[in-house]
Amino acid sequence: MTRVGIIGGTGYTGGELARILSTHPDVEIAAMTSRQNAGAKVSDIHSYLKGYVDITFTEKISETKDLDLVFVATPHGVAMSEVPALLDQGIKAIDLSGDYRLHDVSVYEKWYGHKHTDTENLPKAVYGLPEFFRDEIRGADLVANPGCYATSIILACAPLLKSGLVEEDVIVDAKSGTSGAGMVPSQRTHHSTCGESIIPYSVGSHRHTPEVEMAVDRFASSHMNVTFVPNLVPIVRGIISSCYFDLKGDCTQEEIDEVYEGQYGGERFVHYVKEPSIRAVVGSNHAQVSSRVIGGKVVSFGVVDNLVKGAAGQAVQCMNLMLNNKENAGLDMPGLGV
Amino acid sequence: MTRVGIIGGTGYTGGELARILSTHPDVEIAAMTSRQNAGAKVSDIHSYLKGYVDITFTEKISETKDLDLVFVATPHGVAMSEVPALLDQGIKAIDLSGDYRLHDVSVYEKWYGHKHTDTENLPKAVYGLPEFFRDEIRGADLVANPGCYATSIILACAPLLKSGLVEEDVIVDAKSGTSGAGMVPSQRTHHSTCGESIIPYSVGSHRHTPEVEMAVDRFASSHMNVTFVPNLVPIVRGIISSCYFDLKGDCTQEEIDEVYEGQYGGERFVHYVKEPSIRAVVGSNHAQVSSRVIGGKVVSFGVVDNLVKGAAGQAVQCMNLMLNNKENAGLDMPGLGV
Amino acid sequence: MTRVGIIGGTGYTGGELARILSTHPDVEIAAMTSRQNAGAKVSDIHSYLKGYVDITFTEKISETKDLDLVFVATPHGVAMSEVPALLDQGIKAIDLSGDYRLHDVSVYEKWYGHKHTDTENLPKAVYGLPEFFRDEIRGADLVANPGCYATSIILACAPLLKSGLVEEDVIVDAKSGTSGAGMVPSQRTHHSTCGESIIPYSVGSHRHTPEVEMAVDRFASSHMNVTFVPNLVPIVRGIISSCYFDLKGDCTQEEIDEVYEGQYGGERFVHYVKEPSIRAVVGSNHAQVSSRVIGGKVVSFGVVDNLVKGAAGQAVQCMNLMLNNKENAGLDMPGLGV
Amino acid sequence: MTRVGIIGGTGYTGGELARILSTHPDVEIAAMTSRQNAGAKVSDIHSYLKGYVDITFTEKISETKDLDLVFVATPHGVAMSEVPALLDQGIKAIDLSGDYRLHDVSVYEKWYGHKHTDTENLPKAVYGLPEFFRDEIRGADLVANPGCYATSIILACAPLLKSGLVEEDVIVDAKSGTSGAGMVPSQRTHHSTCGESIIPYSVGSHRHTPEVEMAVDRFASSHMNVTFVPNLVPIVRGIISSCYFDLKGDCTQEEIDEVYEGQYGGERFVHYVKEPSIRAVVGSNHAQVSSRVIGGKVVSFGVVDNLVKGAAGQAVQCMNLMLNNKENAGLDMPGLGV
Repeated sequence: MTRVGIIGGTGYTGGELARILSTHPDVEIAAMTSRQNAGAKVSDIHSYLKGYVDITFTEKISETKDLDLVFVATPHGVAMSEVPALLDQGIKAIDLSGDYRLHDVSVYEKWYGHKHTDTENLPKAVYGLPEFFRDEIRGADLVANPGCYATSIILACAPLLKSGLVEEDVIVDAKSGTSGAGMVPSQRTHHSTCGESIIPYSVGSHRHTPEVEMAVDRFASSHMNVTFVPNLVPIVRGIISSCYFDLKGDCTQEEIDEVYEGQYGGERFVHYVKEPSIRAVVGSNHAQVSSRVIGGKVVSFGVVDNLVKGAAGQAVQCMNLMLNNKENAGLDMPGLGV
Repeated sequence: MTRVGIIGGTGYTGGELARILSTHPDVEIAAMTSRQNAGAKVSDIHSYLKGYVDITFTEKISETKDLDLVFVATPHGVAMSEVPALLDQGIKAIDLSGDYRLHDVSVYEKWYGHKHTDTENLPKAVYGLPEFFRDEIRGADLVANPGCYATSIILACAPLLKSGLVEEDVIVDAKSGTSGAGMVPSQRTHHSTCGESIIPYSVGSHRHTPEVEMAVDRFASSHMNVTFVPNLVPIVRGIISSCYFDLKGDCTQEEIDEVYEGQYGGERFVHYVKEPSIRAVVGSNHAQVSSRVIGGKVVSFGVVDNLVKGAAGQAVQCMNLMLNNKENAGLDMPGLGV
Repeated sequence: MTRVGIIGGTGYTGGELARILSTHPDVEIAAMTSRQNAGAKVSDIHSYLKGYVDITFTEKISETKDLDLVFVATPHGVAMSEVPALLDQGIKAIDLSGDYRLHDVSVYEKWYGHKHTDTENLPKAVYGLPEFFRDEIRGADLVANPGCYATSIILACAPLLKSGLVEEDVIVDAKSGTSGAGMVPSQRTHHSTCGESIIPYSVGSHRHTPEVEMAVDRFASSHMNVTFVPNLVPIVRGIISSCYFDLKGDCTQEEIDEVYEGQYGGERFVHYVKEPSIRAVVGSNHAQVSSRVIGGKVVSFGVVDNLVKGAAGQAVQCMNLMLNNKENAGLDMPGLGV
Repeated sequence: MTRVGIIGGTGYTGGELARILSTHPDVEIAAMTSRQNAGAKVSDIHSYLKGYVDITFTEKISETKDLDLVFVATPHGVAMSEVPALLDQGIKAIDLSGDYRLHDVSVYEKWYGHKHTDTENLPKAVYGLPEFFRDEIRGADLVANPGCYATSIILACAPLLKSGLVEEDVIVDAKSGTSGAGMVPSQRTHHSTCGESIIPYSVGSHRHTPEVEMAVDRFASSHMNVTFVPNLVPIVRGIISSCYFDLKGDCTQEEIDEVYEGQYGGERFVHYVKEPSIRAVVGSNHAQVSSRVIGGKVVSFGVVDNLVKGAAGQAVQCMNLMLNNKENAGLDMPGLGV
């Protein structure tokens, strides 16, 4: 059994990692840290883990020996203070924050507003989107797990960009459930604020913009322009990103369908469908992608559960690759559907 | 025009008061205070008041002269530091917090956990439920506006208690939308916590329990036992309180219907209906009450918009009585329905 | 008092018309028709109208004499069988369906899939968006009340188009609450389907597309291309339409702000704001518009309550113009805010 | 591998059975029937099953040979026309409708309003609540799977009744998500009706009343009086039933805690907790139970996912017992938590 740890076990992503890993056939959760809950039983804080996780929160990951891999599920800015020590001890690391996603330090510092303190390991980090970077992830010691918005957007956009059928300029109108904002209460995620509203926020200034640009640039011939408008919507789990492109020339629905089926036909977790459904993926590591030609434009939808394929599930999928497990080990569960 | 002020204009209740008073034919909003927003235009903070309220938040109510009546929409414990100065200057006051609802100081201090510092005015406060205490409110200088839960419960229970048909012991299972918890974010009202859940809280220890007991005692022959379990439900506005009684003896549905129709047949804002509906009252000062015999028991439902009939609307109704306006002035608007 | 009637009084729009008109100072609701509820008291079907509307549903509008104006709140295809008789008798009519919105019969028949049977009156119908067609509405006998999506989109787009600052090609990603779909249950509006989902539908084929194109063409120099993707979102009331344009050249946020403030600065019901809010307009005839430059693009948001400014409220605003009432008569009420 | 079939594969319960069984280690889904979708791929109708269920809907279960066990997930009244043929062929059956829950035919016919046509097999049906009737289920050929409300109520009430600490008269105020009402749209489950409301329904006349009474009678000394008021709440999955008892005499919280811990301490799927949480069980076969003394009364809460422990999950748990699988086979997955 591989011994894994989770730094930041109190938050939604940390809890979700534990939920998934607790039934994983090849892995043992050896440690979960929490500053605020150190000393408490994990299942007293997360009652849904009763009978599944029987350990106690520790304050520091270094209190636990013989770890093989650690998930870092802390806020931005904290992860980069944890990763160096892990790598130094030969422990593989998967960072679920934004700290290792942007390879250009100046871009990071501009969007996140603070210094990057681990520029040594930054270039080693592999972007953990298995459907596109499977081989690099296999050999990685450090994986930067994609953001939830970025995952949904890249899954929707990359096949089209690779196909060359569209202009390299995209408008993304994304809608996210509130769990994407994490467990810390705020005015925007206060139920009375958002429960009967749709709230566009960080219009043109959301931190996932450079992440998406960096990722899709790999598939574009030149620098890709991304106009990104996220919206908070009153659902708990789920993201749907609607991505609008201009077609370069005439193009039929059938040609578009072929592009996506060619890309995802063999994938376990990404499905190309006629009508995308958030409920079909919620609770699972599955994503749905859909695309429709409208006149000279095409709209592509990317749908994920932000906490699973958009965070913890994708991190476990990366872990499976890094450890040479079956890629779907511990993740083979359909979405709720209803 | 009567000149009124609102202490605590940033919160939900303060904003709702302004919303209602802004179109009131007999009243001018002369002052709104806010510690955090002093100096800002009210309609920049509450954008729904654009075109309706054109004043600026002040820090203290004493900055505005010639006020006739002031609404105190502050948290518990603050109101009692504002009311004495108002009354001393001959300004009538309506307190929307819990500070003047419980006439027994020791009960107040037990449930609220701090000293009561205005025991002089406490006995003068009239409980502001017009349908039952109309005459006392008319002559009052200080009104303690009922809590939202208490309003829904008393409207449902009082007619039955007065009728003598039921035992004086009631189980209240109440369900409240999140705006009843106010505008300050918390873990419980965080959308990801409550958006897809029903959360019983303060089981047996909610502060509205003694308020309800005190109010219903007036209609009971002896001390009334209230078992009160509130639940947070994922709607923004609205309360439905389900009140369960044992019938003393045989009793038909028709007898129960007569009791309620006798009580509320002439009321403008309380309606006895077959099937109670939260949406029918939301956005309005109306309440719906319904009652059903089930074997040897009876369940009575009380439904209000917690911010209107459960707070600001009822306060305006009390104001109308205190000022000899028409009781429904400024309040004559049906609920949304949908 | 003007005597008005409502054809189709059972549905959401018919009920909302009654809700608004019941407190209108210049109008009396003399008739409401309903095929399914003929003979029933209106307030027994719509319990929120208890105390406000005291009439009984009739089967046909012709049963009521001396009407001055009739609102037609029936489904598409029915209105055009009611309007001719009204106009023949000299009764003004406001149609809230899509029957009189498209002046080109062939466009109507293509998108609605049936013949238009009143091509005589079709050319006389004035498009009822007061902020842009005020003078035409004043003189009209027949008004085609805009659709809810179209209202939100035109309010957001027209000022930009008139300014000439943007390319005449717009992507509209609109999000609507479920009441926009009406009161008839369907699989898509079933709570278990949509309650925790965001559902794009009628992608590229929604009937409001030609309506929006026709309306915005009036402000564009040539034919406007509209790519319209509506989404069903789990809120009851409210629409936000996000409209994406390419800027023709360099343009600052300040220039954009000036365009909108110039357009709407004097309007009672449309407000240009920094952060648009659905809750600020819900329950009211107010709209909010917001616009933000992002690189070489601009996104403009239009927000309305689909049942009020998007339907019944706007119809009453048109009625006020047609009858020479004050334009805001009966409509002066702020949005709920919370 | 055991070959199982599902009659009624289109509905929520049928789909949920397939979702759970598709990853069950000991079982193969050999058949799913659907009148309306016969001939269609299951995963084209339920897109969440893509990659998990690769069969096609058939019209009749008899088209598939060599079945070992069949789940009957049809509406009430249909199951009893399917079960006899199954049992005749030696196929075990688990009925998820209400047809075999009430052993007294006259009670069934009174509450369901039609004849019972399989009175021969009715007495053989075992009530499928494993935590209380484990041994009987092991030997059964026909299991009547409990209703979702009944499951939540019995789990909350049975330990107290067995303890003798409470009077045998209970008030149940239950709150259910909309998926409990099934997939057929109706006015009550229309989003605009229920999305911002709490709707008590079938007050005193819900069909689960006799089921609960029959079940709890087994633990009571005499006939138990159940006052049952269900409420529709705007969540998709989840039930919380709040059960109010009078205590017979003095009783401490600790005594109550011991009763429940004694009952459920060794159970895999039922947990006694301080604060019950719907989200902690959603998506899983787990239940949470909580109980609190309030003066001379006690309130006990029972929480389940209505589609899992309240339907399909419990049916699979019963199947495991009937087939001598591990009781938790295929069901070992924590609730979503968030």
